[in-house]
Amino acid sequence: MKDVAVIGIGQTKVEEHWDKSLRELAGEAALSAIHDAQVDHVDSLYVGNMMSGVANAQGQLGSLIADWIGQRFIDAFKIETACSSGGAAFRAGYLAVASGEVDVALVLGVEKMTDSPGNEITAALATAADGDWEVDHGVSFVALNALIMKRYMHEYGWQGIDFANFAINAHKNAVHNPYARFRKPISEKRFNQSPMICAPINLMDASPIGDGAAAAILVQADRLPERRKRIIVAGSSAATDSIAIHNRSAPLWLFAAEKSAKEAYSQAGIHPNDIGVFEYHDAFTIMAALSLEASGFAEPGQGPALAKEGAIEIGGRIPVATMGGLKARGHPVGATGMYQIVEVVQQLRGDAGETQVSRNDFGMAQNIGGSGSNIVTHILRREK
Amino acid sequence: MKDVAVIGIGQTKVEEHWDKSLRELAGEAALSAIHDAQVDHVDSLYVGNMMSGVANAQGQLGSLIADWIGQRFIDAFKIETACSSGGAAFRAGYLAVASGEVDVALVLGVEKMTDSPGNEITAALATAADGDWEVDHGVSFVALNALIMKRYMHEYGWQGIDFANFAINAHKNAVHNPYARFRKPISEKRFNQSPMICAPINLMDASPIGDGAAAAILVQADRLPERRKRIIVAGSSAATDSIAIHNRSAPLWLFAAEKSAKEAYSQAGIHPNDIGVFEYHDAFTIMAALSLEASGFAEPGQGPALAKEGAIEIGGRIPVATMGGLKARGHPVGATGMYQIVEVVQQLRGDAGETQVSRNDFGMAQNIGGSGSNIVTHILRREK
Repeated sequence: MKDVAVIGIGQTKVEEHWDKSLRELAGEAALSAIHDAQVDHVDSLYVGNMMSGVANAQGQLGSLIADWIGQRFIDAFKIETACSSGGAAFRAGYLAVASGEVDVALVLGVEKMTDSPGNEITAALATAADGDWEVDHGVSFVALNALIMKRYMHEYGWQGIDFANFAINAHKNAVHNPYARFRKPISEKRFNQSPMICAPINLMDASPIGDGAAAAILVQADRLPERRKRIIVAGSSAATDSIAIHNRSAPLWLFAAEKSAKEAYSQAGIHPNDIGVFEYHDAFTIMAALSLEASGFAEPGQGPALAKEGAIEIGGRIPVATMGGLKARGHPVGATGMYQIVEVVQQLRGDAGETQVSRNDFGMAQNIGGSGSNIVTHILRREK
Repeated sequence: MKDVAVIGIGQTKVEEHWDKSLRELAGEAALSAIHDAQVDHVDSLYVGNMMSGVANAQGQLGSLIADWIGQRFIDAFKIETACSSGGAAFRAGYLAVASGEVDVALVLGVEKMTDSPGNEITAALATAADGDWEVDHGVSFVALNALIMKRYMHEYGWQGIDFANFAINAHKNAVHNPYARFRKPISEKRFNQSPMICAPINLMDASPIGDGAAAAILVQADRLPERRKRIIVAGSSAATDSIAIHNRSAPLWLFAAEKSAKEAYSQAGIHPNDIGVFEYHDAFTIMAALSLEASGFAEPGQGPALAKEGAIEIGGRIPVATMGGLKARGHPVGATGMYQIVEVVQQLRGDAGETQVSRNDFGMAQNIGGSGSNIVTHILRREK
């Protein structure tokens, strides 16, 4: 397999883009990445998207977007793994370039969520759960996460307020990210007074949906022009688990996160403490905690302790959500995995501005599909 | 890149499977392929499916099916390119194995269409067209194909009856395929008396939907046990075009078919006349004609002549739809591309029974998404 480098990134602001269609959002991020990479064409396109069929009545986004950005006739397809579709698309692009088949790959995550005519979004989000065994019984996606969080609090003795710092840290960092949806800091008091959505998950435990697109250009590292900053894909791994929570052997442990993270560390030849920035999947604060634990940054049940002691902040032991995370940058579902990649690249390039981390040799992005059933972990490395 | 071999295949009958859920259909085909390949595990799973989000309220089929077949924790994702999702999934699996990253890949196409509660299927099929520029104006997917066919008849002087042999040949071959949905021969009279669906497309010009799943196991060819028949992926290519027909420079020419077929021929080092069997995408008879022309088997406008003179029959110059094609085997949309692969493997193995072709060194499968906007072509080679 060939080494693969990221040579261009692009993103749109996450918000309610009432004036932009899905293809326009996708085009904005894609052309921005192409411009950043200074390439004049791409050979193939991998689109991560969860819900365009349900929410936008549109299939085959590969063809749609290739045509829209002036790359008609290239090889292009859509990848879907629910909420981790962006990360899965990045992995598909990585494999295509690593195989030697593709010279220049464009990977794009896009989701258009806020102007569907009816109840499509709730229905579309529910497809991330098990249709026969969970959704048919009326359990929504938030409710599934609430069940996990409730059990976690019972098992390890945490209170709701113990999860506050995950949200506070994310909002604090998002203030400096022009692409983030919510750029206001929040206080512990604000967190505590937030309305309950589905106990024990309150509004500030949950990430907001939004419209957005993020993209990256991948090439074989040995074809990289000399002048380029070398950001290498040092580890790429994905793993699955049972979608239905009741089928898992340990519902408080993200096996797919552990497996994919361990494989990625092994490929990169590093340990968790070599990671200088971790863009994790804080769709809900409980997922933030579980992701930190399964990826080797905290003991089982001790994720909230990391947040409380400030280890997750810029300058801490393991900075997370450095651009706002899903919580404050926003969670345009199928695009999120590519926002994470783009943000890690910004950090490794040293372009993260006010929230730049100091240890930026290795960065990790972990994208979680469903309530832990499809998890994709990537490690990027900066070469000097 | 490494050579890739197909070592196992499996399929379900295409029909209205009222007693089987999507995961059960998928499992049946997958386990059958695993059994045929005599492997005890798979490393990754690539699922081709078009409409599970809309029609089955179910996303992340990768995780769902991996778990269902006892392969929990493996890397698994869904690929979607509308009607060519099966072929695109096969290509994704091929690239993953060719890269050296994956040892044993399972590729599966599945679609569950006949027991959705409402109008989901019509809505889901429409997502294969351009939502903003075609569907919003009320054009159905059949109507788009009818527009192309009408123009084709006008341009080249054919009548509706000139397309009859595409359907007659497909039904004749399906009689011998136990997995086909319609196993009755049809006459020219029957074709001519068929009710009009959307002029000039009558019922016998159109393929039927259905429920079905088909699967294959891919491995690196140099790891193949000696005793195995060697069926090698000799060519793999995919190309796109504008989804909206009005945007294409020549609506009667499948540029994406021409491009992907030419690349596949080049990779395999052969010419069209080396192909002994061609599983083409006869969703409508007009697509059969256009596919033959763009792939180099007939001059522009002369596809129907091939059908009229019997060149497409078993024993003819270029046998097509040897197991019934989309027309008579049935068209479970996202599964179709994998049925085509499975059928080519049957022919190359010499296991095609009554419809076995005599020249079976090279077989080709071409899967068409939309009305020509995402086309995947594969050439398989039998090694002696």
